[in-house]
This record gives sequence, structure tokens and C-alpha cells, in this order.
Amino acid sequence: MKIGILTIGNELMNGRIADTNASFIAREASQQGWGVEAIMSVGDDFAAIKERLDYLMSLTDAVICSGGLGPTSDDITTEAIAKAFSLPLYTDENVLNYIKDIFTKFNFRWVENNAKQAMFPQGAEVIPNARGTAPGFCLPINGKLIFVIPGVPAEAKLMVTNSVFPALRKHFPQDELYIIKQTIRTFGLGEAAVDDKVKDINFQSLGVSIGFYPVFPENHIVLIERGKNQDEARKNLQTAQDEVSARLRDYIFAYGEQTLEEVIGSLLTEKKLTIAVAESCTGGLITSRLTDVSGSSDYLERGLVTYSNAAKISMLGVPAEIIEKHGAVSEETARLMAEGVRKLAGTDLGLSSTGIAGPTGGSAEKPVGTVYIALADSQKTICRHYSYRWDRKRNKDIFAEAALFLLKNFLQGKY
Amino acid sequence: MKIGILTIGNELMNGRIADTNASFIAREASQQGWGVEAIMSVGDDFAAIKERLDYLMSLTDAVICSGGLGPTSDDITTEAIAKAFSLPLYTDENVLNYIKDIFTKFNFRWVENNAKQAMFPQGAEVIPNARGTAPGFCLPINGKLIFVIPGVPAEAKLMVTNSVFPALRKHFPQDELYIIKQTIRTFGLGEAAVDDKVKDINFQSLGVSIGFYPVFPENHIVLIERGKNQDEARKNLQTAQDEVSARLRDYIFAYGEQTLEEVIGSLLTEKKLTIAVAESCTGGLITSRLTDVSGSSDYLERGLVTYSNAAKISMLGVPAEIIEKHGAVSEETARLMAEGVRKLAGTDLGLSSTGIAGPTGGSAEKPVGTVYIALADSQKTICRHYSYRWDRKRNKDIFAEAALFLLKNFLQGKY
Repeated sequence: MKIGILTIGNELMNGRIADTNASFIAREASQQGWGVEAIMSVGDDFAAIKERLDYLMSLTDAVICSGGLGPTSDDITTEAIAKAFSLPLYTDENVLNYIKDIFTKFNFRWVENNAKQAMFPQGAEVIPNARGTAPGFCLPINGKLIFVIPGVPAEAKLMVTNSVFPALRKHFPQDELYIIKQTIRTFGLGEAAVDDKVKDINFQSLGVSIGFYPVFPENHIVLIERGKNQDEARKNLQTAQDEVSARLRDYIFAYGEQTLEEVIGSLLTEKKLTIAVAESCTGGLITSRLTDVSGSSDYLERGLVTYSNAAKISMLGVPAEIIEKHGAVSEETARLMAEGVRKLAGTDLGLSSTGIAGPTGGSAEKPVGTVYIALADSQKTICRHYSYRWDRKRNKDIFAEAALFLLKNFLQGKY
Repeated sequence: MKIGILTIGNELMNGRIADTNASFIAREASQQGWGVEAIMSVGDDFAAIKERLDYLMSLTDAVICSGGLGPTSDDITTEAIAKAFSLPLYTDENVLNYIKDIFTKFNFRWVENNAKQAMFPQGAEVIPNARGTAPGFCLPINGKLIFVIPGVPAEAKLMVTNSVFPALRKHFPQDELYIIKQTIRTFGLGEAAVDDKVKDINFQSLGVSIGFYPVFPENHIVLIERGKNQDEARKNLQTAQDEVSARLRDYIFAYGEQTLEEVIGSLLTEKKLTIAVAESCTGGLITSRLTDVSGSSDYLERGLVTYSNAAKISMLGVPAEIIEKHGAVSEETARLMAEGVRKLAGTDLGLSSTGIAGPTGGSAEKPVGTVYIALADSQKTICRHYSYRWDRKRNKDIFAEAALFLLKNFLQGKY
């Protein structure tokens, strides 16, 4: 089966936003074994939408359109598609009530143009949107299918996975295969280095395809196995995963969709340990990531962003002489920060960061991108030093990731 | 003049990489005043490249193609384009020597398929590549232009700016326009409500187009004015901006590309004020955003993530009875947290957040999405209460934004 993708919106044509939906849909469709024949973007324009849609319909069996379903006057996708096939629009009262309920429940002011989101071309089947107000729809035209979903990535992704693909599999059953995939999440190696480490594995003989997806500062690997037979597929995928794991053991932090902070949350809970954090250069980002996990209040006692030296001295008990002698960015300060916050909070563990995110503040000895991470428990304090070379925001991101990765390794008994 | 963009590569069709070249070219072309009529991606396939190119040529005056110029066997763009227009290929000896020189200079092993990169369709003009081995070319066909550049983003960007656009301006001089744009960043209103508030403005009579861009939890507006005359264009854009500002005054925090934390940084610096932050539900995110600004150590003294009640009591001096009586999520606690952190840090201002990010921890009285934000100075403490309805991560994002927005308003003398 051949698929076409049409992303709709003036913001794509003027380059204001990059088209992440198209690549997401293309990747997922490829993983299902469907060929993506054409990807197009078009502005919010009646004639152009009709024209591109006609073209894509001539090339493919199904077209997935994304964008232009919102309530504002430039959101014309539904109307344009109805016009393109000379179909009248109807209002779905259930959808209208659903949208109005959301407005009532959250005390939003109702504006009449929101009702637009409950209108659909005749013959369309509504696709529910669990993450927003605008539903999508599926429109069968001459044995082919047109899917229309919102442009908001989080909404689009969920609807593609939960509704569009199941409908495609049902409508084009000859393409059904047993497909399983496994994501392997790594940190600490660049994309080319990850590729290099696994390139000797004979994935082809296992019927497995491998993809590399950098999600800064992490690199994710996706293994996909396609087969008619479930047991064989599982076995082959497991073999491929074992081969990859053997080569990347030190860099892998999760199999599947778990985040690094979720892995840490499970480890802390399992080991019944509590933690407190003292941050300088990461500015609260480590603590914020730890608190992205629901239930983190069970193990995270507090976090301190001791941005000034005075805060490091008065709250964490880092002696002024140490800072003066070694600098606020030093192994000595990092260690004392971790020990200080652990003692202050009365937790099992103390984690700290001190470094230079840039763009200013670097020196020949300690250039921008330098960071010290320390972790203290009742027995010992470990400290690691890393050098990165990104911009301020990405340095903060990779510093925080390095601190969390160190913590994960510690919790797994690696130090 | 109408432009078409064709990005070429199997890695785009299977979603392995997102297409950043298309959005870069689209953005730059729009800013030149050229309409981007269609954006397409196609795999490394002779028939499909010819087919898509024919289609784009029928819609536009110039097509910019990117990708498939490398030395490997799946790089077929040059050959496909030559075939599409029945043109023979020739080897440019200067280019061949240039590529061979690079190999000699860097001690790379010469492999014969590298010579492919010195081949061009008859009639093509070579576009030099200062950042790589594969040059591009410009091919005039029936008064229209086809540009072909590599897919490597850094190479493509430089060649677009330095060669493709100057050639387009020379070939289509009638299209030169004076284009200016203004971004207006807002928080506190949904996209539909923003649209609703400005819909009575007659943008058309001013020659201004308006676009709405949600960047959760913010909504950005972009006004674009295209005109032959610089003074007139500036005047019209200013009029449009004034009209929008009059209607959205309470929600606008920046004109242009400044972030909310940068606006706050400028205000704190200008007023010579220092600040400390005490966070609960936002888990460090407010402090982390403040520290995204280079130089924030001049005004941010420290941040405390008092996740446990013990931390709120011992560090911020919130009486245990207050927490017991009113709850950790309450106006009383928020006020005492702001006052406590201000006193502890010895800063001019203290900012606090306490709320329920979810998905658990809500009650009928205080549902998930409830947050209290307080801000203290030497004279008074203000507190605001908000209710949102997102998932944990987006609740944290919008809580932090609400806190920063309150701080901005305070610094602008609105309370």
C-alpha cells in the first residue's frame, strides 16, 4: 500500500515551523511496512489544497493530512476538503457538546468560531482527539482513504497511532504483518559512534532493521522486526537487542519508552532511597527533570539552586576559602555541595552540579562547557568532570543529563 | 515569483530524518517576498524524481532541489535530472581537480565514485560548495530555473544564501519587494480568543497579513507587510501593531524574538533588583528558565525547590500549623514561601509556586491543575490563583510561565 502525506499550514510554507509531523508519520508508516510515496506541504489556501490533494490521490492509496483544523479563520482544511469533493458540511452534535463541555468545565469563554471544529464533510467518520478540542476525520473517496488530523504534534501523534493506522490496517488488510519494535535509549556516544559500534551485527539475517534517532542529548536506537510469525519475530528481535546491548552496555539507560528520570525514580523507589539536589550551572533543570515523574515527592526531598557563592556558603556550608582557592567551578566545590545538601536535607543521597554553561565565564583552564558532577551517600562522594561544547541551553541540557546518568549508574551499583 | 522546494532522499521518506532544509529555504524565501507554492519530498528514485519535478515546474517559476548529490550509489539526483530533460552529463575538470585536491590534502583514500560529484547536466552552471566536496548547479529550462544543492544542512544553507538567492534576484528582478515583519508574543489567552480579539482589524487595507503560532503555553502573532516602498511599509506595519497591541495589551510580553525570561532579565537589570525563587510543583523549572539567560547570575541569587513540607518549614520558615490548616497548596503557604525565600536570600524580591501538577494529588476543592503564585517585595506580597487542565509536564510548563508572567507584570508596575 502506498501512502501520501500532506501537511497544511502557512506556517510551513513560510518556514516559521519545521514539519515534524511529516517525518513522524513517514517513520511510523515505514515501520508498518507501508511505502511513503510522496510528502507535500501546502498553505492555507482552498485552490492549492484541492490541487495537491488531487495529485496525491492520483499517486497513492491513502493520504494523511495534518493541520488547519483549529478554530481560527486561517484554519480551512475541513472546508477545503469538503469543497474539493463537492460534499456538504454537517455539524456533529456530540462533538459540539464535547467541545462546549470542555469550555464549561474549565471556565473558558466560549467563542462561536470554536463550533467550526465540530463540522465535517458528509460521509466522514470522526476521529476522536483525546488531547485537544479539534477532532479529526476519515473520509473514504473511491476506495481510497483521506485522513485529516490536527497539526499540534502531540495530538497528531496519538491520533495516528490510535486511530489512523488501525483504520488503514482494517481497510488494506493484505498489508498486515506481524511487526514488533524495540527502542533502546543511550547517552554518552555520538550518533556516528553508536552506528560504528553496531555495524558488524548482521541485522539482515535476523530480518531486523535498525534506525538511529538523536534526541539531544540522547541517541535512541529503534530495532524493527517484520514477520508473519509472532514467535520467530520475537526471538529474532531479542537476538538483535542482545547483540546491540553487548556493544553499548555502558551507554544504555532504558529499553522502551522510559525516560532517564523515570528509570531513576524506579531505582530510588525500589531501593527506598531519598535524594536532594544542589545545582549551580544547571539552574534547577536536574531537579525539574526529577519532578517530571509523578510520585517523585516520595524520594525527592528538596533541590537548591545555589547560584551565588553566598548561597553555596550559607546553605550548603561550602567554606569560602575553598571557593576562593579552587573556584566555584571545581571538584572540591562540587563534592562539598553534594555532601552539604545531603546533610541539610537529611536524605540518603546528595547530587550536585557546578560548571560553565556559557557563552561567557570560560577561561583557558576551565572553558565554557566544563562541568563537575558529584554524588554523595553516607559512605563516600564520587565526582566526575566533563567537557562539552554546545551553546548555553544545550550545555544545560547535557550537564543535567550527565548528572542524571551518573546517578542512574550509581544506583545500579556501577561505582 | 513562485518557488517550489523538492527535498530528495530515502531517509526523508522513511522518516529517519526530519526535513530541516525545506523549512530553512521556505523561511528565507518568504522573507525575500517570494511565495513558496509547494514543498515536496521524494525518495532516491529516477521515475519519482522526474515526475515530482515536472509537477513542481508546472506550478512555479523556480524549483530548489536539495539532496542526493553525494558519491554513493543511492545519490542519483544529478543523473535523474539530466534524464528528466534528456540532457547528457559532462565532467567539469576544474571541479574534479578541486575534489581530488581535497582528498590529497586530508589524506582521504580516493574512491572512483567520488568523480560522480564533478558531473553535471549540459547547460548547467556550477554552484560552488565552500563546506563540502559536492558542488551544486543551476539549470535553466524554458525560462524557469532549477537549482540543485546538497542535502547536508550546513552546506545547503550557505549555498542558498550565497548563490541561489542572488541568482534568483538576478533572473526575476521584477519581484523585489520591501518586506518587514513583527512578532508579538502573548500569554494568557487561547489561540481562538487571540484571533477573536483582533478579527475586527482591517489588516487587508494595511497590506498586512497576520498569522497565529501557538508555542505552548504561549501564543505568538506574526504580522508581515510587503510593499514597494519602505516608509509606507513601516508605517502600515506600525499601525497594524498598534491596533493589535490595543486589543491584547494585558497579554503581550514581547515584540520581536525576546523570550519572557529575557524580558524579565532586562527589567531586573534596569531596575537593579535581585530575586530568589521558592518552588514546589514547578520543581525548579522557574529557576531553570530564569537561568537560561546569560548573565542571570547578576540578579538571580538562588532558587529552592522545597518539595517536602519539611523543606518548606525548615528553610522558608513556613509554620507547620499553616500547612496543616490550609494545606501546602494554598494562598497562605504560597505567600509565606515567597516572603521566606526573599528573607533567606536577602534579595529584593521573592517568587513562589505551589500547586498540583498531577496526575494524582488532586481533590474536589483543589483539582489537578491548581496553582498559587506569590511575589513578595519589601512593601507587600501579592498572590494569584490559577486553574489549568493539562498533563503533568504541560501543567508544570504553564505554571512556570504564569509565575514569570506575574513577575514581568509586577516589574512593569502593574500591581
